[in-house]
Amino acid sequence: MEKVDHIGIAVRNLDESVTYYTETLGLTLLKIEEVESQKVRVAFIDAGNVKIELLEPMAETSAIHGFIEKRGEGIHHVAFGVTGIRERMSELREKGVRLLSEEPGPGAGGAEVAFLHPKSSYGVLYELCDKSGKGE
Amino acid sequence: MEKVDHIGIAVRNLDESVTYYTETLGLTLLKIEEVESQKVRVAFIDAGNVKIELLEPMAETSAIHGFIEKRGEGIHHVAFGVTGIRERMSELREKGVRLLSEEPGPGAGGAEVAFLHPKSSYGVLYELCDKSGKGE
Repeated sequence: MEKVDHIGIAVRNLDESVTYYTETLGLTLLKIEEVESQKVRVAFIDAGNVKIELLEPMAETSAIHGFIEKRGEGIHHVAFGVTGIRERMSELREKGVRLLSEEPGPGAGGAEVAFLHPKSSYGVLYELCDKSGKGE
Repeated sequence: MEKVDHIGIAVRNLDESVTYYTETLGLTLLKIEEVESQKVRVAFIDAGNVKIELLEPMAETSAIHGFIEKRGEGIHHVAFGVTGIRERMSELREKGVRLLSEEPGPGAGGAEVAFLHPKSSYGVLYELCDKSGKGE
């Protein structure tokens, strides 16, 4: 867990919330992309030392849609930047941490990602986010 | 909003969760303190580029107690580091943002803090955190 890469936030309307972050809070929009595998449209906002990742569901099958229905808009996860995501997943498993998947999956920006179960992390959904392109 | 100072997380048991962050996740505990005005015991964890602020309620009157009762443990707020907190509060008010207080109050580590209403911020409780010691 070298550092926090981004804070993921579930929103109903990406364009409206991007306007709030840029015009009202004065932050900079880096890019918008679609992550088809997770059925989300994603905006990356530069918050100086970390990114804010705004997530709008593109379908009712998206986990973000379910989150908003259950808890409303708000902070969804915190992502640690890592290298060697498979090794980090093994280390955590050995320490008794539950992970949401056996293998990493594709995330925004070409990263490989995996999630720690909130029950292991005292209520927080932590993501491991590996952009090194190797994942070993 | 120069950068994110910390991520605030509500926990039921500070000592247990500190052990998780240090021994399991491998992060470093910076300090533990009590913020009497907010009835919380606070642990600061170094997550590289930002701090993780674990908050345990010391009384049922603590806002953190209410949060945990309603939503369970989890991410409570994100704090932007600012200087000139009163001026930043005025600027936000002029842009139509609702704040939770007229004036900044005392936070952990001797900071002056104020909160943006989550209804203004698409579901996120944002804190402004001024450690410059002036607040002007």
